[in-house]
Amino acid sequence: MPLIRPLALAVLLAAAATAVAQTPPKRFAQPATVRELLATSQPSDWRPLDPEHTLYLDLAAGRVIIELEPLFAPRHVANIEKLARAHWYDGLAFVRLQDNFVAQFADPLNSKPDVGEKRLPAEFTRSAQGLAFTRLRDPDTFAPEVGFVDGFAVARSGAEGDAWPVHCYGVVGVGRDNDPATAIGTELYVVIGHSPRQLDRNVAVVGRVVMGIELLSSLPRGTGELGFYEQPEQRVPIQSVRVAAELPAAERRPLEVMRTDAAIFQKLVELRRNRKDAWYKVPAGRVDVCNVPVPVRDRVEKPEHERADKRKP
Amino acid sequence: MPLIRPLALAVLLAAAATAVAQTPPKRFAQPATVRELLATSQPSDWRPLDPEHTLYLDLAAGRVIIELEPLFAPRHVANIEKLARAHWYDGLAFVRLQDNFVAQFADPLNSKPDVGEKRLPAEFTRSAQGLAFTRLRDPDTFAPEVGFVDGFAVARSGAEGDAWPVHCYGVVGVGRDNDPATAIGTELYVVIGHSPRQLDRNVAVVGRVVMGIELLSSLPRGTGELGFYEQPEQRVPIQSVRVAAELPAAERRPLEVMRTDAAIFQKLVELRRNRKDAWYKVPAGRVDVCNVPVPVRDRVEKPEHERADKRKP
Repeated sequence: MPLIRPLALAVLLAAAATAVAQTPPKRFAQPATVRELLATSQPSDWRPLDPEHTLYLDLAAGRVIIELEPLFAPRHVANIEKLARAHWYDGLAFVRLQDNFVAQFADPLNSKPDVGEKRLPAEFTRSAQGLAFTRLRDPDTFAPEVGFVDGFAVARSGAEGDAWPVHCYGVVGVGRDNDPATAIGTELYVVIGHSPRQLDRNVAVVGRVVMGIELLSSLPRGTGELGFYEQPEQRVPIQSVRVAAELPAAERRPLEVMRTDAAIFQKLVELRRNRKDAWYKVPAGRVDVCNVPVPVRDRVEKPEHERADKRKP
Repeated sequence: MPLIRPLALAVLLAAAATAVAQTPPKRFAQPATVRELLATSQPSDWRPLDPEHTLYLDLAAGRVIIELEPLFAPRHVANIEKLARAHWYDGLAFVRLQDNFVAQFADPLNSKPDVGEKRLPAEFTRSAQGLAFTRLRDPDTFAPEVGFVDGFAVARSGAEGDAWPVHCYGVVGVGRDNDPATAIGTELYVVIGHSPRQLDRNVAVVGRVVMGIELLSSLPRGTGELGFYEQPEQRVPIQSVRVAAELPAAERRPLEVMRTDAAIFQKLVELRRNRKDAWYKVPAGRVDVCNVPVPVRDRVEKPEHERADKRKP
């Protein structure tokens, strides 16, 4: 019987929004795996999370870290940050876990005071102009063009047309009623399954989980319609939601995200398009915009010799 | 604050491989939702699971039902059925839960006797000829053509070319080492995340979960490399795996799967391509082959008046 063996070493980083292991800064002539490629990265290939646009969502099981992105739904993001700074989300609960779709939290008892906006205009798409769009050459089932903006998977109708975030694994969106104006950020959902692209352009996307999504994706599924929990005691309480900037700097997790407009990201995409390790017999040749996890890591302190160099006159 | 509300009624059946609710056979002039469409279905739109090609995988938490499909990897399926009939899988365990990727079981102690094949030829693709292929008109990122064969998402290079199963949510494949011949069915994985299309044509796909996948997708994620559990006690024991035909007929679950070559399935695809309920503001216009869950239901007994009719001369 064969040994228990990974399906493929190259899929080490397959999970979206997973922190990558720290590896020594060795150089490889031709990186064959994402891990080898990351070992060649430079500090300029990474950007820190902005603590003003980062949420820490704490469950009993641990912390989920969400990067908010004001580029697409600025008023929604601002309202969510206002709610978080008012500690409005504390004590809410995940009320819905629909398999292969979403985890969604809300105020199940309708117990919270009115804070922030009552209605907001739909921010489902925006102009593509002014966005630093790193385009994928791969065809997409749904959109004329797909690529990345600032770490987010994005579709657009063309450089002069509309742009909108793509519902990939880990995306955070704003639940709403049939009336788009009811989407104000008091109920958020996280994609925990195959990308539900039918939601694109129908929802305000405000962010994505960059760490801890497994705390949501492994929650028990709801057995009610649409995956709602049928019993109140099944709900998963939210201890608190904080804007990272509220915490003292020493208590923030110093995460860095790979810059999707850096040259190294193109190499990473190519390694996912055509896997090079010995396990794969037929390379895919193409890549899906939702199957290119953007690497996240803890901030790497400069190696000692580099710091020493800097001290030289 | 808005009421807690489903994101969309039309996504009721969004979860892949989920049994659909039984609804009375009412007629709708123009079904606007999958539920309404299913209510118009005829008995001929469904086929029963073949108990000779159905596995019951029992965990402490419940039963996972897998439909095996010999069309693509017949020797692998035959060997898996042989192993199951020898009760070889009993007492094995899920050893790997990689978020947004796979749940994989194996014989962690290498404790089992040799049963069945030691090596098998790769059955990763086959000829497209002879397959009843229901083609989707929607473009696909990876393959020239995608569609359905016998309830399975399938890609092909053309009607005279190759065909292979697509790695959608719930697909069951055969783990292997770098050598394709090591894939014999002693380690199986189930896709529990965004479709890992890079695996297409690199693995023998043998089936798909038609019920109970939430028992796997909600398992705790492994914290070792590639999602392996680091401690033996974290593994999730398999109580037993049985070919359904081994059980007395009365103990089998009488599941039926929608025929993907029936006209009603085309209507279902169209309802997922362009959602009609009031929640959606912009229909997608396209559908992804991995976002068309094939309905599964418990067998519906004929209504009394139909049975009475049959008894008339």
